[in-house]
Parts: sequence; C-alpha cells; structure tokens
Amino acid sequence: MTMLPASAHVRSVYLGPDGIFANCSSQTALIDSSTIDPQTSRDLAKVAQDQQMIILDAPVSGGTAGAQAGTLTFMVGGDEQQYFRFKDILSLMGKNIVYCGGSGNGQVAKVVNNMLLGISMMGTAEAMSLGVSLGMDPKTLAGIINTSSGRCWSSDTYNPFPGVLENVPSSRGYSGGFGADLMLKDLGLATEAAKAVQQPVPLGSLAQQMYQTFSLQGKGHLDFSAIIQLFQKQ
Amino acid sequence: MTMLPASAHVRSVYLGPDGIFANCSSQTALIDSSTIDPQTSRDLAKVAQDQQMIILDAPVSGGTAGAQAGTLTFMVGGDEQQYFRFKDILSLMGKNIVYCGGSGNGQVAKVVNNMLLGISMMGTAEAMSLGVSLGMDPKTLAGIINTSSGRCWSSDTYNPFPGVLENVPSSRGYSGGFGADLMLKDLGLATEAAKAVQQPVPLGSLAQQMYQTFSLQGKGHLDFSAIIQLFQKQ
Amino acid sequence: MTMLPASAHVRSVYLGPDGIFANCSSQTALIDSSTIDPQTSRDLAKVAQDQQMIILDAPVSGGTAGAQAGTLTFMVGGDEQQYFRFKDILSLMGKNIVYCGGSGNGQVAKVVNNMLLGISMMGTAEAMSLGVSLGMDPKTLAGIINTSSGRCWSSDTYNPFPGVLENVPSSRGYSGGFGADLMLKDLGLATEAAKAVQQPVPLGSLAQQMYQTFSLQGKGHLDFSAIIQLFQKQ
Amino acid sequence: MTMLPASAHVRSVYLGPDGIFANCSSQTALIDSSTIDPQTSRDLAKVAQDQQMIILDAPVSGGTAGAQAGTLTFMVGGDEQQYFRFKDILSLMGKNIVYCGGSGNGQVAKVVNNMLLGISMMGTAEAMSLGVSLGMDPKTLAGIINTSSGRCWSSDTYNPFPGVLENVPSSRGYSGGFGADLMLKDLGLATEAAKAVQQPVPLGSLAQQMYQTFSLQGKGHLDFSAIIQLFQKQ
Repeated sequence: MTMLPASAHVRSVYLGPDGIFANCSSQTALIDSSTIDPQTSRDLAKVAQDQQMIILDAPVSGGTAGAQAGTLTFMVGGDEQQYFRFKDILSLMGKNIVYCGGSGNGQVAKVVNNMLLGISMMGTAEAMSLGVSLGMDPKTLAGIINTSSGRCWSSDTYNPFPGVLENVPSSRGYSGGFGADLMLKDLGLATEAAKAVQQPVPLGSLAQQMYQTFSLQGKGHLDFSAIIQLFQKQ
Repeated sequence: MTMLPASAHVRSVYLGPDGIFANCSSQTALIDSSTIDPQTSRDLAKVAQDQQMIILDAPVSGGTAGAQAGTLTFMVGGDEQQYFRFKDILSLMGKNIVYCGGSGNGQVAKVVNNMLLGISMMGTAEAMSLGVSLGMDPKTLAGIINTSSGRCWSSDTYNPFPGVLENVPSSRGYSGGFGADLMLKDLGLATEAAKAVQQPVPLGSLAQQMYQTFSLQGKGHLDFSAIIQLFQKQ
Repeated sequence: MTMLPASAHVRSVYLGPDGIFANCSSQTALIDSSTIDPQTSRDLAKVAQDQQMIILDAPVSGGTAGAQAGTLTFMVGGDEQQYFRFKDILSLMGKNIVYCGGSGNGQVAKVVNNMLLGISMMGTAEAMSLGVSLGMDPKTLAGIINTSSGRCWSSDTYNPFPGVLENVPSSRGYSGGFGADLMLKDLGLATEAAKAVQQPVPLGSLAQQMYQTFSLQGKGHLDFSAIIQLFQKQ
Repeated sequence: MTMLPASAHVRSVYLGPDGIFANCSSQTALIDSSTIDPQTSRDLAKVAQDQQMIILDAPVSGGTAGAQAGTLTFMVGGDEQQYFRFKDILSLMGKNIVYCGGSGNGQVAKVVNNMLLGISMMGTAEAMSLGVSLGMDPKTLAGIINTSSGRCWSSDTYNPFPGVLENVPSSRGYSGGFGADLMLKDLGLATEAAKAVQQPVPLGSLAQQMYQTFSLQGKGHLDFSAIIQLFQKQ
C-alpha cells in the first residue's frame, strides 16, 4: 500500500528504475491511496495488467482524525473481484469502503466530490456572510438553510461562520480540519481532469482561483472553511 | 395578503396614491408574500409603523406544487408578537412557518437560501457532468456524493443528471419544478442586496451570469436544474 | 449644470418638491454630468420633454487632473441639435466632446467603457503577475504585450506593475489617479444595467466582485490599478 | 527547427529513443517554435545543455496569414548570444524577432500575451453587446471606446461585433482568423502555468471556462472573436 503527496511521486515510486513495477513479481497486489489525477491511476493500471499484477486506486477522505479513529472512507477503483478480495483489509482502516468502478474511478469519485465540496463551502461562506450583513442572526439563518433547499454538508455539519456549530474548525480559529491548501490541490486536480475531457467547470474553476488567492495571502494552513475570511472585514 | 411579481409592483400597490397605505385604517394587519429585495420590505415596514399598521414580510418556497398541497414554507420577518398572532393563518397554507427576525428578514432568508441553492445546483451539475465524462456511472457517483462531504439538496433530492432520481424534473425533460428564470430573478435580488451592503459574492454572481446566459439561449422556461445542459454536448 | 454622486441624489435634485423641474421655466437647458444609471437619465429626459425643457446627460472621464487642466472627455446623450448648441460651452472644460446618441447614451458609453477598462486592468494585472512569476522581466514583458494582440490602455498607458511606467499611480504607491472604489461603483452600474436588459456580462461581473473583495480588505482608496495586489504576495 | 501541436509531441520528438537528442551531435543548434508550456521548454534546455547542444524556444504569433506573408512575430527564449546568432534566419520568416530572456521565456511571453488577449476579447464582446442592448449604435460605441481608456487591440483592430470593422472575421461570419479552440488551448497553457507557480488568474480562468463552454456547443472552429455569440440571442 502506498499513499504519496502527488502524481510525480507516485509515478517515480511505481515506474522508476528502482520502483515497484521493476522489482515486484507477477500476482503482486498493490493499493495506491494517494489522491492524484485519474489518468495517472489508469496509466499504472495498464502497466500492472501488462505485468500481471493487481492494482487498486483507493484514495481516502476523513482527514487525520478519521485515520486515527479508523473511520476513513476509501473510494476504490479497479477490478470488482479484487475490490471484494481486499475490502476486509481496507475495513481495518476505514468505515466506508465504496466501489466506484474501473481503474481510476476511485480518483474520479474523490476529486469530483471534493470539487463540489469546495464549491458548496464557498457558497455557504458567501451565503452566511451575506445574510449576516443584511441583519440576520447567523444561527437562525443556518437553521433555515439547513431545513431548506440550500442545505448542504458545508452548512449543516461544518458551517464556516464562527459560533454556529460547536466542535468545528470555525469555532476554534480554523485550526485542525482539512487545510485550505489541500482543498486547493484537489480543485487543481479537478480542473485539470476537466480540461483533459473538455468539460466546462466554471464554478469549480472560480473556487480554485479564490483558494489560490487565499493561499497567496498566507492563509493556506488554515482549515478550508476559513475561506469565509475572504468575504469578511478582517 | 399580497403576492406580487417584483418590487416595483409592491411599491405601487402599497405606496401608490390609490394604494393600501392610503386607503386602510390604522391597526390593519398586512402580510406581503412577494419575493422582493429586503430594503423594499423594510421601507414598507417603516411607513406601516408611521401609520400604526402592522406588516409582515413572508415570502414562500415550495413552488406551485407546495401551494396546491398546502405545504409551503413561509419565511417571516417583522415583529415577533405579530408573527405568533398570524402563524395559525399562515399554517393553513404552509407546513413550515419560520420566524427570521425583524422586518425584511423573511426576504433575507429567502434570497440567501436561494442564492446558495443556485450555487449548489450549478456545482452539482458541474460535478455530475465531470464525473460522467471521466467514466463514472451517474447513479454510483450520486450515491457516493450523497454520503460524503459534497452532499447537498441539489444532489440528494433534486439531482440534475437525467435518470439518477425518479420524479424530479431532470427525469421528465426538465418540465415542471422551479423555472430557471425564477432562479435568475432570485440571484439578481441576492447580488443586488449584496452590492447594497458591500458584500462580495463571487460564486453567487457567476451563477447569476450563467443563468442569464442560459436564459438568453431560450431555455429560461425549463426547470432550474436544466442548467446542466450548459455543461453537456446537446 | 449638475454633477452629483449617485442616482438617488440626481432624482432628488431634479424631481424633488424643491427640485429643478418644479422650479425652472420651460426652455431651460440642463446638463447633468453625474455618472449614473442610463435609465435614470432617460427618466429625467422624459420629464424634461413633458415640461418643454432641454436636458443632456454628459458624464465625464479624465479624473480630477483632467478637470483642473480642462482636458476632460464629455460623453453626451440627448437631442443632437442641442448637443451642437452646447458643445462650445462643454469645450471650455473638456478636450473631447463626443456625441453618443439619444438620451441616456452618454451614460451608456461611460459605463460600458469603464466596464471594459475594469476588465482590461484586472486582465493586465493577472498577465503581468503571471509573467513575472514565471521568470520574465516586467518591462520586457510589457514591451512585448504593447506591440502584440494583448495591447490595451491598461498595459501601455497605465501599467499596474510597479516600475514599468513612470508617472503612473503604480510607480508612486498607487496614490492619486482613479480610486478603486470609483471603479467598483461603475462596475456596479454596468452589471445593474446589464441585468435590466438581460445581458450576460460574466467577466464584468467577476471584476466587480474582485473590486468588492479588494475594497473589503480596506484598499478601496487606492488607485484602481492597485487591484494587482490581489494577485501578489504582500 | 520544429513546430508541433503540444508538449507531448515535443517531448517525444526531442526526448524519445529515436528522438533528436539521441541522434544529433554536440553543437547542433535547435529551434522549437511549438506553443507549449514553459516548463517543457526549460526541461529541453537542460538536456540540451548537458549534451552541449543549443536550443531556443521561439513560438510565433500571426497565424497562417502571417506565415504565408513572412510577417510572423517570433518570441525567443534562450541564450542571448544564440538569439543574435539566429535572428537573421528567423527574420526570413518573421517581421518581429523579440528576445524575451532565458529558456522558456519565449513561451511565457506567448502564453501571457494570449491570456490577456482572451480576456480582452471576452471583455470587448461583453462591452459591445451591453452597449448595443442599451441602445447605442455599435460603430459609435467602438469609436468612443477606441479613443478612451477601454481601448484595446480586440476593440480597435479585431472588433467582434459584426459590421464595426471591415476585413475582420466578425464581418465575414467568423471564418478564418485564429480559431476559438486554439485560444482555448492557450488559455489552458496559461492557467496550468499559473497553477505551477501558485499565481491566481481569476479572469484568465473564467475566460478559459467560457471558451470551453463555447467549444462544447460545437463552435470551436469559428474565429475566437465569435465568443460574442455566447452573449447574444442566436
């Protein structure tokens, strides 16, 4: 099992002259839990097939807290039989082990979900800031949204407005959680994958640019819900 | 009770020489269920107070289907005691009667929720289109999103990708539902209110521009989830 | 002649009970040099016509420096014969007196030009920042752009990158010039006018949101070319 | 000299087992006129240096018309002495041979200029459409912009509104010229390079998404000024 920062590292570790493919025997089973672009996962799967090895892409969500508690979600791409074969092993580390389809689809599910998350978080940040600027109490506003059609995870579980929810990063100075620079990385993967298949993603792309602006202002280490600070007087 | 298309009509009906304020006696109770900008509702409330009348702003959500079934949500702004006084009457037409705070706050809640809805819907449309372009099955993808952090009403209750959910507009040619041009109107109210309080809303504003583009292409009469067609080859 | 901050002031001064229309005799000639929404100018023109008065909308560009030097540009809307009649008077204050067509068209020309200016300035700021981040010398880069298809006034006459041009705000700490908050006002007029005629303006709208973000960060008093600071590490 | 469609082809032709670097002797001088990402050009330059070869990146602008007439612009990156050595040869094909700095800077200049061009063209398209929707004559409007601060190449030399200028693509059904899909490619290179150096480019990125949307609607073969059709009723 591997879990590496970016595609370049994965390519090096798997495809390099001293790498995994050059040194493992056929029938070796490999699971890569890095979050990388789907095409790299598919390229690895092709090499694995040529060498009669088995590989699954299985990126995770849930953060360091989920890893420590063993409650991660694994999104798995690859051969379905192999998924069933290794599901129990992954279950030792995660709570939800989801099959997403052929090779690379674990990455697709991860990157698409996180693009929508980045958009929803920015949307919630704009909505909460606007409502409060227009005179509403933030808890009342969140209560209405959370029982209406604006409802989303970013609003009902991870609200970015300080004081609306307890035990979330926005109520402890945006420490802990999922870093803004990690969201920026995933939005970069999403827009890059979108470009490769000629798919327009205007909101995803604007979210990426706003997180890039936020990072440039020296705030990339904060939780990603801190993006609300772009919309508030500091 | 009044329910009119836009602020100009409301101003005319309430403030005009033959209007409500000129012709009703003090202590008259007024409920305006139009969806308009918060400032107009607050202007009316000030006149009402000067004339010792009572007014609540109480825009609705739930569409024509909710109106027929008596399951609308009323978002109510104004004096809290008056809200309790008239809650039972509103309950004859709606299922949720929510108090949002002082005058105009009913409008604020409505317009802020709908801005977030427009953003979420566009985000879901981009995410579903991207995932399917990258090779995922739409139902599988929606299933993963709906149990993950990308989860939102637009994804789990009103998914814009045809065939993912039954009995939603996307599965019947985008007929019925909440028209794209009505979403465009609400996004216009949101960005106008944001300008008045100097609040940046970049995603809300881009969503408005995309709905305007969609409307220009002659599609404003379709359900607002049809915005996904901007991101798909027709 | 009047020159007032915003539409509300103009409406009050012209249409109020103690205002111009209530107190001037027929045949009075009026010139309004405020920068306001075209619809207000057209509304005034209609009242003027009813009262047999003459009115021209004649917003200016050129800033306080242009006003002191008498080199302003006047963009004039209204009856063409009246334009010729008053051109000489305007020439005492301005160098270019341009006829734009019927009532309100002076405002249209001003607001449309300034929307394109705001877009070009942001585009130039992004382009210069990107080129320098990628290793180019800013003067070399500007020299190439200014003789190529990226050429624009924001690049060749008012470059936002410090040190590229002398005697422009970017080379004196973004003091003087045309304030970012004035650009924000004009972008607001442009997007509001666009909404009224159902015209999509996605880049104009995003430029407005970025200037709003910049203003929220306490920088609205700087020259509008300082928007480049959004794209640079401070 | 090479001129190839994209980075993958350049890498293959130069770095492949049967490629240029594997088969040429030291002191060979190479000029690559492909439009690709700056990093690839810099990677090639490093290999060339190791093998004591000479390489210049020299992408062109001017289109097929400029190529036939010998009036191309070459933007050259690499060693300055080598630039002077080969300038005369490039002058046989081009009119302007511009030195941009070290290796890769020819690509930087090209991609940055074209990003600003894409933004200016979209901005001009929005501005012209808005002005005409608000009642102005397109030639009058262009005349005012072209002598004002909104002036840019897209407005004064290549105006996208049909009938404003003669002998440009907008006046012959958007045929000929620089294809929208080529602009889309260059905007993709710009945003990718921006991501690599953590540089926000919100307008450049939105322009890319709008060109992607336009291409999806089957219009990528038209001249890039046809983007104005996104903003007009068809």
